[in-house]
Amino acid sequence: MDRKEILKGVQSGKLTIDEAAEKLKGFDELGYAKIDTQRKERNGYPEIIYGEGKNLEQIKGIVKVLEQEERPILATRVSIEKGKALKTAFPKGEYFELARCFVLQPMEIQTSDYIAIVTAGTSDVSVAEEAAVTAETFGNQVKRIYDVGVAGIHRLFARLEDIQQASVVIVIAGMEGALVSVVGGLVNVPVIAVPTSIGYGSNFKGLTALLGMLNSCSSGVSVVNIDNGFGAAYNASMINQLRRKK
Amino acid sequence: MDRKEILKGVQSGKLTIDEAAEKLKGFDELGYAKIDTQRKERNGYPEIIYGEGKNLEQIKGIVKVLEQEERPILATRVSIEKGKALKTAFPKGEYFELARCFVLQPMEIQTSDYIAIVTAGTSDVSVAEEAAVTAETFGNQVKRIYDVGVAGIHRLFARLEDIQQASVVIVIAGMEGALVSVVGGLVNVPVIAVPTSIGYGSNFKGLTALLGMLNSCSSGVSVVNIDNGFGAAYNASMINQLRRKK
Amino acid sequence: MDRKEILKGVQSGKLTIDEAAEKLKGFDELGYAKIDTQRKERNGYPEIIYGEGKNLEQIKGIVKVLEQEERPILATRVSIEKGKALKTAFPKGEYFELARCFVLQPMEIQTSDYIAIVTAGTSDVSVAEEAAVTAETFGNQVKRIYDVGVAGIHRLFARLEDIQQASVVIVIAGMEGALVSVVGGLVNVPVIAVPTSIGYGSNFKGLTALLGMLNSCSSGVSVVNIDNGFGAAYNASMINQLRRKK
Amino acid sequence: MDRKEILKGVQSGKLTIDEAAEKLKGFDELGYAKIDTQRKERNGYPEIIYGEGKNLEQIKGIVKVLEQEERPILATRVSIEKGKALKTAFPKGEYFELARCFVLQPMEIQTSDYIAIVTAGTSDVSVAEEAAVTAETFGNQVKRIYDVGVAGIHRLFARLEDIQQASVVIVIAGMEGALVSVVGGLVNVPVIAVPTSIGYGSNFKGLTALLGMLNSCSSGVSVVNIDNGFGAAYNASMINQLRRKK
Amino acid sequence: MDRKEILKGVQSGKLTIDEAAEKLKGFDELGYAKIDTQRKERNGYPEIIYGEGKNLEQIKGIVKVLEQEERPILATRVSIEKGKALKTAFPKGEYFELARCFVLQPMEIQTSDYIAIVTAGTSDVSVAEEAAVTAETFGNQVKRIYDVGVAGIHRLFARLEDIQQASVVIVIAGMEGALVSVVGGLVNVPVIAVPTSIGYGSNFKGLTALLGMLNSCSSGVSVVNIDNGFGAAYNASMINQLRRKK
Amino acid sequence: MDRKEILKGVQSGKLTIDEAAEKLKGFDELGYAKIDTQRKERNGYPEIIYGEGKNLEQIKGIVKVLEQEERPILATRVSIEKGKALKTAFPKGEYFELARCFVLQPMEIQTSDYIAIVTAGTSDVSVAEEAAVTAETFGNQVKRIYDVGVAGIHRLFARLEDIQQASVVIVIAGMEGALVSVVGGLVNVPVIAVPTSIGYGSNFKGLTALLGMLNSCSSGVSVVNIDNGFGAAYNASMINQLRRKK
Amino acid sequence: MDRKEILKGVQSGKLTIDEAAEKLKGFDELGYAKIDTQRKERNGYPEIIYGEGKNLEQIKGIVKVLEQEERPILATRVSIEKGKALKTAFPKGEYFELARCFVLQPMEIQTSDYIAIVTAGTSDVSVAEEAAVTAETFGNQVKRIYDVGVAGIHRLFARLEDIQQASVVIVIAGMEGALVSVVGGLVNVPVIAVPTSIGYGSNFKGLTALLGMLNSCSSGVSVVNIDNGFGAAYNASMINQLRRKK
Amino acid sequence: MDRKEILKGVQSGKLTIDEAAEKLKGFDELGYAKIDTQRKERNGYPEIIYGEGKNLEQIKGIVKVLEQEERPILATRVSIEKGKALKTAFPKGEYFELARCFVLQPMEIQTSDYIAIVTAGTSDVSVAEEAAVTAETFGNQVKRIYDVGVAGIHRLFARLEDIQQASVVIVIAGMEGALVSVVGGLVNVPVIAVPTSIGYGSNFKGLTALLGMLNSCSSGVSVVNIDNGFGAAYNASMINQLRRKK
Repeated sequence: MDRKEILKGVQSGKLTIDEAAEKLKGFDELGYAKIDTQRKERNGYPEIIYGEGKNLEQIKGIVKVLEQEERPILATRVSIEKGKALKTAFPKGEYFELARCFVLQPMEIQTSDYIAIVTAGTSDVSVAEEAAVTAETFGNQVKRIYDVGVAGIHRLFARLEDIQQASVVIVIAGMEGALVSVVGGLVNVPVIAVPTSIGYGSNFKGLTALLGMLNSCSSGVSVVNIDNGFGAAYNASMINQLRRKK
Repeated sequence: MDRKEILKGVQSGKLTIDEAAEKLKGFDELGYAKIDTQRKERNGYPEIIYGEGKNLEQIKGIVKVLEQEERPILATRVSIEKGKALKTAFPKGEYFELARCFVLQPMEIQTSDYIAIVTAGTSDVSVAEEAAVTAETFGNQVKRIYDVGVAGIHRLFARLEDIQQASVVIVIAGMEGALVSVVGGLVNVPVIAVPTSIGYGSNFKGLTALLGMLNSCSSGVSVVNIDNGFGAAYNASMINQLRRKK
Repeated sequence: MDRKEILKGVQSGKLTIDEAAEKLKGFDELGYAKIDTQRKERNGYPEIIYGEGKNLEQIKGIVKVLEQEERPILATRVSIEKGKALKTAFPKGEYFELARCFVLQPMEIQTSDYIAIVTAGTSDVSVAEEAAVTAETFGNQVKRIYDVGVAGIHRLFARLEDIQQASVVIVIAGMEGALVSVVGGLVNVPVIAVPTSIGYGSNFKGLTALLGMLNSCSSGVSVVNIDNGFGAAYNASMINQLRRKK
Repeated sequence: MDRKEILKGVQSGKLTIDEAAEKLKGFDELGYAKIDTQRKERNGYPEIIYGEGKNLEQIKGIVKVLEQEERPILATRVSIEKGKALKTAFPKGEYFELARCFVLQPMEIQTSDYIAIVTAGTSDVSVAEEAAVTAETFGNQVKRIYDVGVAGIHRLFARLEDIQQASVVIVIAGMEGALVSVVGGLVNVPVIAVPTSIGYGSNFKGLTALLGMLNSCSSGVSVVNIDNGFGAAYNASMINQLRRKK
Repeated sequence: MDRKEILKGVQSGKLTIDEAAEKLKGFDELGYAKIDTQRKERNGYPEIIYGEGKNLEQIKGIVKVLEQEERPILATRVSIEKGKALKTAFPKGEYFELARCFVLQPMEIQTSDYIAIVTAGTSDVSVAEEAAVTAETFGNQVKRIYDVGVAGIHRLFARLEDIQQASVVIVIAGMEGALVSVVGGLVNVPVIAVPTSIGYGSNFKGLTALLGMLNSCSSGVSVVNIDNGFGAAYNASMINQLRRKK
Repeated sequence: MDRKEILKGVQSGKLTIDEAAEKLKGFDELGYAKIDTQRKERNGYPEIIYGEGKNLEQIKGIVKVLEQEERPILATRVSIEKGKALKTAFPKGEYFELARCFVLQPMEIQTSDYIAIVTAGTSDVSVAEEAAVTAETFGNQVKRIYDVGVAGIHRLFARLEDIQQASVVIVIAGMEGALVSVVGGLVNVPVIAVPTSIGYGSNFKGLTALLGMLNSCSSGVSVVNIDNGFGAAYNASMINQLRRKK
Repeated sequence: MDRKEILKGVQSGKLTIDEAAEKLKGFDELGYAKIDTQRKERNGYPEIIYGEGKNLEQIKGIVKVLEQEERPILATRVSIEKGKALKTAFPKGEYFELARCFVLQPMEIQTSDYIAIVTAGTSDVSVAEEAAVTAETFGNQVKRIYDVGVAGIHRLFARLEDIQQASVVIVIAGMEGALVSVVGGLVNVPVIAVPTSIGYGSNFKGLTALLGMLNSCSSGVSVVNIDNGFGAAYNASMINQLRRKK
Repeated sequence: MDRKEILKGVQSGKLTIDEAAEKLKGFDELGYAKIDTQRKERNGYPEIIYGEGKNLEQIKGIVKVLEQEERPILATRVSIEKGKALKTAFPKGEYFELARCFVLQPMEIQTSDYIAIVTAGTSDVSVAEEAAVTAETFGNQVKRIYDVGVAGIHRLFARLEDIQQASVVIVIAGMEGALVSVVGGLVNVPVIAVPTSIGYGSNFKGLTALLGMLNSCSSGVSVVNIDNGFGAAYNASMINQLRRKK
């Protein structure tokens, strides 16, 4: 419910002054959280629930508040146990195990333009699925192009056309993250790079891939935090849907 | 000259087979550099000259090759001395001292959608101008919104409308880079964050701002390398021009 | 018992010379620890028990020594198991689960001036409660203002007056810690910043927030160690009670 | 000029509506800077000029704006050359060479409570003087207690009474910064620690002292950025003047 | 058995040429290890068994080889389980639980000069006991002076005479490690500093204490690895026994 | 099956056009992985299975694809549980517990030139065995020279001849990694250094050994990632077999 | 002069016992240096002069000693000024300005097998030339393949055959160093990776490229220190000449 | 003048009560410094002047105070310019250019036991000379053993006897610092390791050598700060003179 609707509610008598004032405050006070009810109006998407470090009751509580007026509802970093419990509590929702996401009331597809999600290896797929589920929940079409790392670069070229025709490309890689620079040199759309924590020793849990991506010799690359598939997809969705704005 | 044009040149007899084969190779060999003549076809913009660590003769040589067929020509990180010498050598070009950029044959404005370039402080302006000149050279309109850091947050709110109506926002900040999260929470378009090396002590030449931006609590933020105004604008230009693509 | 009281005890015959000499030494030797019995005289508060890495018997032993003459008694970083056992052993005490603190003989409220404790997110609340319980144990009034991070900055403005009227503000944030700079720019009292270890990837367990806070563009901010809610409250209590000193 | 005064000006006809609206905006637009004219109202002190990375003309321009309505004016990190030129341009001002500060219209002494500024060594004095000049400019009395590092700890004890009777203590140290913990264990007022970049090798330009201070075994210590004498004094001044507030 | 004894054995017919040649090789081949049987001759002490990462069978195998000719036998970083099993296998040996050391055939006291082992806190005692047991096993007298950290510096002064009369002082501290500099400023014998991993947040598992000790403002301090009580005692024993050499 | 064989298959009618096209694509699509079937042709060895982070079913699936046409098959970082299950599934294969490798269809010995694998300590043996099994699987002879670290340097000299006559030497060491420089100064063949994560405290899980090896004062040393025994052996095998190429 | 020749000299009376004993010592004492005269015998190449941090007289002195018996003589990291002075002092020598190397008595070509030296960019050429001059001085043929970074990957494919037919490949890259992984995936010979300090911001003077190369997803890559063109070529020369050994 | 002498002076009437009280304070107040006049009594050596960051007048002022009663006087890190000026001001003093030390009134040789100072390379000699001059100024005999790094380990063995007969060994090395572990494995006296800042790239200005030395596989090694030749010699002198104490 955005501000204009609240005011109309007052005008029409559907809302009392007190109810409207409460709603205009812009957040719901749960004690343990202040749920930002103006976020969709400001940012285009409602508040997303970051599941890590919240217990099941807290997540349920927030979903209940959001469920009434918001669309879509997305909770990320949700463990299998919590995911199953949420599915029981909200049977219309869906839990994606590999992506560790719980989704309720996803948006419908907004555009035929699609987001390409590209991974270097098999182990990056969990992060990639977090990105894919996020993008789909936000109403985007997604093409998944997995395990095309540069050690066998012909695998990348076999899928190049799909990558080049996307409106934005998310590249997800661990180890040294070299795939980002190669893809960045071959496309004319924005590339969002996601370093993953895949690797060992001097990889330092994704730091090496992060630094590599920030220093890419290809222009047109921007970077999000290690393993942040959600953030990349959020960003990509904004870009993909810009095309249809106006 | 892209691949189709080369082939037409062969067809029409304007190019010999040898000339065409040479052109199809996709780069010009200068000895000290292999200029990528297919970059515009692949990436939407021709090869950009990174001036740091190239001497004047090298820059001139590359400009001469590009000048014949490419548009626009942009050299970044060009010192005042080299900038003046380039202006003398290519009188149609322009040197932007604050931005440290040399520009020849800029593109015309492609769209009325604009890029907002926002800085936290006065000292970030040099990086901001590199971004602004890059974006303008690539045919974008730019709104400059400087010195609106969060220590005096009403300065930001005074310019908020201009920021919210941009199609993409570049936020440039040193020190702790908090401006990025505040802006990210107030817009519904992509935010590209540029950490600057402004600060001292435990700032570590921009590392603190870089880390802060990568860990922003606002979704929809992606990050480029420290002081990389060019990269942010390159990315923003791709996004801004997506809207008119298709 | 401070030094003057000991000497009076000698004068009045209540203490033998040996007893007094032992007390004047200024610490109780427990073998595994030397409890500093002069700390309240020197620092204003008695020795606080840091529970991490001490076993239950050690904590009990120290509480028993302190119980006789000191007020208040505070043990921090006490696990639930140890907390319950302490409650059993010292039934007058209280264990605060979220704060992980055990308290005995808290001080009475010293002043109507209050300390504002502000958090960016829900996950920072555990650190905030350590701060709040510490401050209350030391005789301060506390206002808790939780989950007002900058991604939804209107939540902060809704509580701004409470923050501005405090005599000292503790700001607790993880991720990039931007809330500190925003609050710092809006108040005319000291801000004590507590980085938390909330975040992932390049957050490096709170290092990013720590660096951000040390480099805040707002003046008037000082910083304590990551997750050190106790230290911030200790400091804030000293400041809050300065007002009534003299 | 604060908001109430502006409104009175309108009421009395001294200000036109346009003039008042401009003033209520809260900043002066200089092109290269937006001077925050509401800072004193919000923060207790007007905007301070950080001289590093600003040229002489910029500093002069800002001083001219501030000079009309603000008190005090303080520019920090001002080189000798700029300092002398400012003295010529504003003959009523004073330039402090060791502190690298330029001051105009300092505040008068507000209270007989004083701030103790303590250094470990001779080389820390430049940072200490930045703190001292800042504190004095803000109307505080200061006691300077220099070169009392723990390698000769009797020097500290010789001055202990002066330190213990201050209302707040600033401790400034390089190398390992151990002085902070020793002082912190001996006083019952807040200690603000300033690490300096004095040291070599594994000191890493002050990082060692910074980390040491953040991990002090003494409670009641908070920390500012490396070499940030100004920030410590700003904070100390807020604390010192709290006593007389209300 | 050193080289001269082996040759005498050949001379006297007690050893065959083959046996002597094998012994002169200087190590015993166990397959998984080559035990250095010349170490005592070269270094003054036989090979010490570092228990971490060796299984019980490996430790037993090495003890068996050493048991025949070497004195003392010391195994460090031995878990309780392995320690109890070693006690069973070698009933004359002793297992020290707090120190995590197993000792067989300790040396007799070599000198009345003693080593002072000083800790800042209670949590440092485990490392201190590793040092103490090592020093005693190598025939040194030890004075244990625990929990005298600088937050209550009078505890240190109460034991100062014992520290000043040692022939070498081992100082063990976590957090910021300030105790080292204070002790270093008060004695005229070598100080060996041992940083411990006690601390949290920006302590980085002992890195802060390590850096602090390396940058001590007191001369005469040298440093060993984090938690390396053994190494400090080995070194101290060499120094303590130098006095009686010649 | 390399490209020429595929084409012959078409020529001879053994492969249909579709089958051949599929094979020429160069990878097998398993959904969760794209197995690179051209790697042996390009790199000399088929794709190796990195077991970490792959579940048993995934490893089995890949082995099944490779088993048909490739030789050798090597899976590294395979836990005991998975190793035993692979042995059951592929009874001709062999699981090496210490090396954590599963091998099927190893290559035959290609040359009498051998690779020397040298370790500093007993704890480095697990990494050494990964190297040894890899080298043997690739058809090389290996000499194992374990536990010859510089603390007892005569152990190294006792085996020096074997090291000097190798065609390439792999040196594996944790802690400070000094053995690499000593060996590097004594041989006239390439040395490949493998830092291990053996150590504690400021060893930082192998970082110290890695840095030490990269900065070796001996020429002729190159380095691989921490604990990367496989990578060192892969490289060494290429070098060892170069001698017989042509 | 190796040990056998010295002994023959004694036999033949050409050397006195004293002269021979002096030579058998294996180094020449210059006071400021002990020149290792056995290095060629042990390592295959004589001692190389690292010019950084040695003054002209020291370099000259060492060249004079080596000149008499060694071949080749190579001094690296020699500034232009010193290089010209060495050319004057030893007119038969040659100074390579771009490579910053001085060479005297280079070895003759030993084999037709060649080393490929590949760079990502123009700015890496100085390091590449250090490698090339070193390799040529040691009697190797070199193919220089410069500026084929992955941002325009067709430039690499245009030169792929030359790279694939080398007996060892040196890949030199700054920024993120992605070229190494791409080349590593396309060849069946060892790849030696050299990170360069080309880059800015979070490149950290080559650290990013170094980490990237150590974590390469392509097998068969080993790494040397940042900007260490010499070390890579030394290593490559050993490998290239192994083929003809025996 | 120590405390007993002062009291005798009072007794004999040579000192007034005021003069004695001033002297008993234990330091001389110079304004910019508090010279510790009790250091020799406490630490065995008077206060040493660290020249870095002190100007000529400050150094002169301190020397003048010390000159009257202390022996020896040592100023370290003194530049050539300041060194020459000190020689002019105090003609009896001596300036050591390579060591960058100024010495006045050195102590006489205290014992025939000597300190061995061993360096890995020629570039480490400046740090070694700081150590040597310090040790000699404190009355020790020194043996200099330079340029015996492990790349040519026979140079070390040629001087081994001199090293083994020292009463303490200082080992000074840059790059990877491997020499420390080799020497540590060959002697039965304490080894003090000094990392130097010699190296490049991933050496990080001595950090690599520092870490290597802290993690030495040889027992009996302790470490001082990077380039801290003075600190090592101070420590070594304490150890060397312990032998004659009592």
